[in-house]
Amino acid sequence: MKILTEAELRRIVPLDLEAIACVEEAFHALATRAVAMPPILRLDIPEHRGEVDVKTAYVPGLSGFAIKISPGFFDNPKIGLPSTNGLMVLFSATTGLVEAVLLDNGYLTDVRTAAAGAVAARHLSRPDAAVAAIFGAGMQAKLQLEALCLVRPIREARLWARDGKKAEAAALELTAKLGLPVRAEADGRAAVDGADIIVTTTPSETPVLRAEWLQPGQHVTAMGSDAEHKNEIEPAVITGAGLYVADSLRQTRRLGELHHAIAAGLVTEGTGFPELGEIIAGRKPGRSGPEEITVADLTGTGIQDTAIATLAAARAAATGAGTAFES
Amino acid sequence: MKILTEAELRRIVPLDLEAIACVEEAFHALATRAVAMPPILRLDIPEHRGEVDVKTAYVPGLSGFAIKISPGFFDNPKIGLPSTNGLMVLFSATTGLVEAVLLDNGYLTDVRTAAAGAVAARHLSRPDAAVAAIFGAGMQAKLQLEALCLVRPIREARLWARDGKKAEAAALELTAKLGLPVRAEADGRAAVDGADIIVTTTPSETPVLRAEWLQPGQHVTAMGSDAEHKNEIEPAVITGAGLYVADSLRQTRRLGELHHAIAAGLVTEGTGFPELGEIIAGRKPGRSGPEEITVADLTGTGIQDTAIATLAAARAAATGAGTAFES
Repeated sequence: MKILTEAELRRIVPLDLEAIACVEEAFHALATRAVAMPPILRLDIPEHRGEVDVKTAYVPGLSGFAIKISPGFFDNPKIGLPSTNGLMVLFSATTGLVEAVLLDNGYLTDVRTAAAGAVAARHLSRPDAAVAAIFGAGMQAKLQLEALCLVRPIREARLWARDGKKAEAAALELTAKLGLPVRAEADGRAAVDGADIIVTTTPSETPVLRAEWLQPGQHVTAMGSDAEHKNEIEPAVITGAGLYVADSLRQTRRLGELHHAIAAGLVTEGTGFPELGEIIAGRKPGRSGPEEITVADLTGTGIQDTAIATLAAARAAATGAGTAFES
Repeated sequence: MKILTEAELRRIVPLDLEAIACVEEAFHALATRAVAMPPILRLDIPEHRGEVDVKTAYVPGLSGFAIKISPGFFDNPKIGLPSTNGLMVLFSATTGLVEAVLLDNGYLTDVRTAAAGAVAARHLSRPDAAVAAIFGAGMQAKLQLEALCLVRPIREARLWARDGKKAEAAALELTAKLGLPVRAEADGRAAVDGADIIVTTTPSETPVLRAEWLQPGQHVTAMGSDAEHKNEIEPAVITGAGLYVADSLRQTRRLGELHHAIAAGLVTEGTGFPELGEIIAGRKPGRSGPEEITVADLTGTGIQDTAIATLAAARAAATGAGTAFES
């Protein structure tokens, strides 16, 4: 059994094409194999503005399965601590024995979430997509842009955030890191105008992306909503799009942007939509042409955790990283 | 953050009166405070006869909460491995940071489960209960008897198990360990005859304890059923008892012995019953007198895990046990 720290995991599991490929394969498996992905376990600790999500999934064919525990305690920044933390535990799928404890403090979630954005862009955006608009200025805003650059020929990006100063700082940081011009935009509409891919990464509870701003051929990935009360895109974005794709339809009906379109009465509860894995596997059609507007609704799935934890354990074995522990 | 191995945990958290007290307090809190205990997360891996349960609970007032992951892989014994394994993670209830990873391989579950049996006996059996009958010959059979001896003046015990040889071996082992006569019984009815406390600890899917065997004043604790298909006691035991008590009524209606009484049509779904914590807290009456037959239906709750993990972390801090880890 191995224990890996965040520092070790950052070293051996960067956001790279292999991380994207492993998440892509996980979505493929979700559509084609008898994946077991139970509903998320959720614990709320309102006294401390805390919430904990536990996710898991078993993908037949993978040697292990991960259980991820993600606490979010939103008063932490007041005492100088990050809001989100957590760890993943990787178990053998044949014996249930613990194979690795990944003390990642949420880092692997950041990577697998950004990787899902890249997978969505790879399968839904125009292949020549060159201009990205990012909503938000946090860790995922940065990682989503970095991930897009790995799968599309991005040459320019705009970044909007509610806090203009944070947007400026993130834009500067990304310009330096990615070697392409990233401009902070004070106006969401201006950020969207002429963009090929729009990624929303905020924890907003009211839409930050308006349907009327969208232009033919754009692809939208909304990845900020992972809880009932979060809502980044106007419900009309979904009904106005040519193609709406869920990471897990069961989840987006309950937690994602789709949930708000259903609540607004714009979509009926039982309406079928393709899932990302079905498009990857070729079981459902993807983008119909360069003019179509496409939307990916990503709520985060346990298969991504199992995929990235499996990659981390393989890399740890290959590099000798981590501390062996006898339990 | 500390990592503790099974060997360390066995040393610092024996089954003792303090372990029983901490589980008792947890049940008390369940009845009197705004405990958050979400439904169990369950993952099935039928290819390998595997199942994984994740339990958690937050008890207001405790500094931490535990998340317990319990895999059970029932083909493991064929390759010389134990069926059940797992670990607990203790988090700060104020920041969500990991405080301890308890690599207990299920040991702490064994302790807190046996402790709950002692709590049930302390509050439901006659104070002078001296004869115990144990159904089953596994780890819990042994620990439940050991736990009873800590709270009642047990001077004799009988042990019945489907496998007579195992029953003989367990009886010998317990006689030596506890210093009291423990007799293997080939006949369940004979084991029950004259006993004051009966504890069923089997994974049976058909009743091993018949209602007609019971005698006035006996107390029954059924702790083997933690899943829909498990059923140790005849449903008529519940309807025939003067007092039926659940560890968590929400759980016993779904997973416990009560579930089978409901399925058999002997109890209607919405029937109210006291919970163990309500009796501990004095909010509901317990045993009405020396002639009453009482039944405790224990399915295992997340509060017990949080309680025992908190005790383990406190003992680790006091004794310096465990390995400090920087995540």
